[in-house]
Amino acid sequence: MSDATVKYLLPETDLPTDWYNIVADLPTPPPPVLHPGTLKPVGPADLAPLFPETLILQEVATERRIEIPQPVRDIYRLWRPTPLYRARRLERALDTPARIFYKYEGVSPAGSHKPNTAIPQAFYNKEAGTRRIATETGAGQWGSSLALAGSLFGIEIDIYMVKVSYHQKPYRRALMESYGARCVPSPSLETAAGRAILAANPDSRGSLGIAISEAVEMAASRDDTKYALGSVLNHVLLHQTVIGEEAIDQMAMADAYPDVIVACTGGGSNFAGLAFPFLGAKLRGGPDVRIVAVEPAACPSLTRGRYAYDFGDTAGLTPLTKMHTLGSTFMPPGFHAGGLRYHGMAPLVSHIKELGLVEAVAYRQTEVFAAGVQFARAEGIVPAPEANHAVKGAIDEALRCKADGQARTILFNLSGHGHFDMQSYTDYFAGKLEDIDYDEGDLAQALAGLPKVAD
Amino acid sequence: MSDATVKYLLPETDLPTDWYNIVADLPTPPPPVLHPGTLKPVGPADLAPLFPETLILQEVATERRIEIPQPVRDIYRLWRPTPLYRARRLERALDTPARIFYKYEGVSPAGSHKPNTAIPQAFYNKEAGTRRIATETGAGQWGSSLALAGSLFGIEIDIYMVKVSYHQKPYRRALMESYGARCVPSPSLETAAGRAILAANPDSRGSLGIAISEAVEMAASRDDTKYALGSVLNHVLLHQTVIGEEAIDQMAMADAYPDVIVACTGGGSNFAGLAFPFLGAKLRGGPDVRIVAVEPAACPSLTRGRYAYDFGDTAGLTPLTKMHTLGSTFMPPGFHAGGLRYHGMAPLVSHIKELGLVEAVAYRQTEVFAAGVQFARAEGIVPAPEANHAVKGAIDEALRCKADGQARTILFNLSGHGHFDMQSYTDYFAGKLEDIDYDEGDLAQALAGLPKVAD
Repeated sequence: MSDATVKYLLPETDLPTDWYNIVADLPTPPPPVLHPGTLKPVGPADLAPLFPETLILQEVATERRIEIPQPVRDIYRLWRPTPLYRARRLERALDTPARIFYKYEGVSPAGSHKPNTAIPQAFYNKEAGTRRIATETGAGQWGSSLALAGSLFGIEIDIYMVKVSYHQKPYRRALMESYGARCVPSPSLETAAGRAILAANPDSRGSLGIAISEAVEMAASRDDTKYALGSVLNHVLLHQTVIGEEAIDQMAMADAYPDVIVACTGGGSNFAGLAFPFLGAKLRGGPDVRIVAVEPAACPSLTRGRYAYDFGDTAGLTPLTKMHTLGSTFMPPGFHAGGLRYHGMAPLVSHIKELGLVEAVAYRQTEVFAAGVQFARAEGIVPAPEANHAVKGAIDEALRCKADGQARTILFNLSGHGHFDMQSYTDYFAGKLEDIDYDEGDLAQALAGLPKVAD
Repeated sequence: MSDATVKYLLPETDLPTDWYNIVADLPTPPPPVLHPGTLKPVGPADLAPLFPETLILQEVATERRIEIPQPVRDIYRLWRPTPLYRARRLERALDTPARIFYKYEGVSPAGSHKPNTAIPQAFYNKEAGTRRIATETGAGQWGSSLALAGSLFGIEIDIYMVKVSYHQKPYRRALMESYGARCVPSPSLETAAGRAILAANPDSRGSLGIAISEAVEMAASRDDTKYALGSVLNHVLLHQTVIGEEAIDQMAMADAYPDVIVACTGGGSNFAGLAFPFLGAKLRGGPDVRIVAVEPAACPSLTRGRYAYDFGDTAGLTPLTKMHTLGSTFMPPGFHAGGLRYHGMAPLVSHIKELGLVEAVAYRQTEVFAAGVQFARAEGIVPAPEANHAVKGAIDEALRCKADGQARTILFNLSGHGHFDMQSYTDYFAGKLEDIDYDEGDLAQALAGLPKVAD
């Protein structure tokens, strides 16, 4: 029967022993991170209030391979290595000559790729004696992943959750609380940043940028508390490369190599996690591969943002990083892929885009959900709204193969399942999902407000 | 680090090739199923309007092993073999000398063990030319599993969903619709059974018994439509034995064998799936093993029901089966483990209980959720409310080991994750979860109304 499931599972003994650091293979290094006051490159001491030393060193590391600590691998094995599938039923539904593979990260206990970095971040914090970690979360994928990590390592977790999501996604909140984390709707009265926002706008629905400001403030102002970020930063992308490291071995099991790699981009971490190891191989003289980043048309940092120094948060508490940004005050509309509602792109992804190593494409949410439903009915897994962007990108690549009559090999990252996002599917089926656009005036204003930094 | 995850994964090549039929090893066969009109044993012809021939033959099969068709194995491989874990962090939290193992069925695309039977049922129906399958669902685990199977085999699925769940669990409904199934709140106006209930009680919140009546009626009255049941029947239990067949091999990988097996029981299928292969080995002279069925105190068919012939549904459309029953008109209170809200127990499980091969214990929902939260914080997986019953049973066995100073080996079935049941956790954390008891008068009346059958 041609409907046979084709799954490539690595034995546990083949769990990667190292993360891959693409900085080692880039033709030019990424621009430095700047202190917002001095506009000078930040040093480790500037970051010490927020992160344990090992993570700071990983943030600026230049060696190609960084060992995954044994206790992290011991927990990774709860769900890793994750499966790689050939989407044979989807190929048939599309009647495409393309071979479509996908790496499935939804098998983690939190349902997405996010625990790949939550676990090591909690581990290094535990090693450094951190008692509490403050963080932010949008849709809740990151928050629930850090909550999981906190419960496994015995660290208190305080999560500032974007207020609109806090109320719209009570089940993600319940998941965080099941892991023992404390979840606070943001903006809150717990921080100066939150109080300032609420004073100006008592009805603020919050944003990821605001929630980051709150979490950073709490970490910076308390001796026993550090901060953790679920995407964007170099060390986060580094941890996610476990995805691509496994995928390289699994594609070899399938006797195949991708012509094109597709992943969705919000902050950029699941994208980097799958793509960087393949891109690194190419940079070292290995096989060529196209890399396609798929972003929401309503929050299009790679396709419509400016490559400039900007803050990672709304209140301007973070260092300045050079990235594709819509401006830190940009307010993305309330579309359903909450994990992709961020004004900036990971500096490393942005740098690589500037180097011409990455293509970017933006889609609207109704076409993205149509792709997700087609995928679910063919392959059995209901993707997260974020992952639907990657599905749509992969389907379009496959349809291009059909038009060209070319049997190219497509690999995409199915970064999470949609179990906590079924309201968006309900809305989609009820015809209530609309292609909300961002406000052009808001974007122009946010870009005009970018910090002035001489490049 | 002693917190290392200990996971036993079978290679795909070790996916079982056969299901195990315990009837072959029982000292006495289970009592026959009776026609409700004639009170004579039903023959295959009586069941032909409802089920394809292969499933009818499996219902009465006596051979020990029944081959899993290749196309079913091809789809099983989407998520099987499922992992078996050693719950080392939970053992440490309990400070018990017991070794606790659990088989995790939540890795299926629908999140529970139910696809183990939904896939073969859809396959045999497809083979027999069935165009549409009607079924019922309570909490939605079964409905979403059959919806998944229908999408993979190209069969229309009509699901009568208990009305109170239809409204309380919109996300399960969205999952079914994502797979392309039609979901109808039951009682509905589509069937005579539903119309009769609504005429008597327009505000009826529905029950599994009523929904079964509706689905059976639709199947019996339409030539192109068959019926499917997600638990209780012999062929369903048979399909679930793939769980225990894998677990036997995985326990051997761990160089261990269970002293006690624990699983929750609603209709009995996840329980039988894990326990029967081990029980069969014992019946054939293999190692002794205690088998513990855990049921909700609010719907206690094994511990408080009568072993008697009864209908499987409310309207009296099904054949009569001898089982532990609370009476087919019994209305269980609205506690959170919807998958365990059924008046009867699988005839095979009931028979084995009468043979003294199974112990049963009943728990209240607050203690069950406390166990589930303790498990989630130690092991990282948030269980379904149904599975929390098994967790509680396993924890109590482990605490008994601590009291005894005995290092017994416990194996339990973590039959599904709680991603679609987070409202129950929200209620639990908010202190809104109450230990609702059933109505003793209702139970007495339901038992008094049992059909009169001379045994």
